[in-house]
Amino acid sequence: MNMSKQDECNNPIPTVDTIIHNDSQVLFIKRVKDPFEGKMVFPGGFIKKGETAEEAAKREVKEETSLDIELDHILGVYSDPARDPRGHIMSTVFIGNISPNSHSKEPIAGDGAAAIKWVSIEDIEQEDFGFDHKKIMKDYKEWKQSKQTSWSSRSKSKINE
Amino acid sequence: MNMSKQDECNNPIPTVDTIIHNDSQVLFIKRVKDPFEGKMVFPGGFIKKGETAEEAAKREVKEETSLDIELDHILGVYSDPARDPRGHIMSTVFIGNISPNSHSKEPIAGDGAAAIKWVSIEDIEQEDFGFDHKKIMKDYKEWKQSKQTSWSSRSKSKINE
Repeated sequence: MNMSKQDECNNPIPTVDTIIHNDSQVLFIKRVKDPFEGKMVFPGGFIKKGETAEEAAKREVKEETSLDIELDHILGVYSDPARDPRGHIMSTVFIGNISPNSHSKEPIAGDGAAAIKWVSIEDIEQEDFGFDHKKIMKDYKEWKQSKQTSWSSRSKSKINE
Repeated sequence: MNMSKQDECNNPIPTVDTIIHNDSQVLFIKRVKDPFEGKMVFPGGFIKKGETAEEAAKREVKEETSLDIELDHILGVYSDPARDPRGHIMSTVFIGNISPNSHSKEPIAGDGAAAIKWVSIEDIEQEDFGFDHKKIMKDYKEWKQSKQTSWSSRSKSKINE
């Protein structure tokens, strides 16, 4: 992304992140560059002009992990201006899984990924996450129990903070 | 919004729309300007750099209807590049209701709103909606029956279009 151009925009820049899960684990990549070099993050990236959020999510996952995925839910939209040190970048977080028709059956670290790791939702505290992805993992854990969006599963007081 | 500046951006521009509902009706405003002048739309608008999506939703509803609202759910994220004739503009659609503490108890048409109208979810076909708000109303109707995000309530085949 051209960051100088981004700074000219009057609005937050939209990205996507995808929680690729199986029964008890979530797929993370280890970032190869700053910000958060070496930290664990969900596969994701910037939405390009002309593509939908869903297309961007699938494209980024393919580039970073070689997997073809299906998207099933939206966990939430994360837009705190302080969540990304590069500027105001907001993310739509999808929940998906590996497509039965995926060309690659196992993830392979690709663009922007130094490594791939399946993380158990019970091991959140043991991992070192980038951006606000630890918070998102906690929301996901709550969602998995409630089967609703992170919004729905929050108390009224939290929603209206 | 400065449209010439927007054109310089490499990514879709993020907006919010809010479905303010009671048991059987949804609040619409009649647009005062193009695109879709005179059409019925949800209150909403552009997210400014430095504010969250939730803050933008509440601010826009306040400006356009004078109401203070509470946000409860995210219906979906609508990002079809063709949904807005001004360019690639994507919207996070919240579901909310009038806050019990709202200063104004009834909506009053404000900035960008020629009129206010409560529309019954049974009357979707009788109304003339702007943007993709008819589609969103249909997704809302489906969500209201299933109590899930529009994503969750769609069939697998539709999600992976």
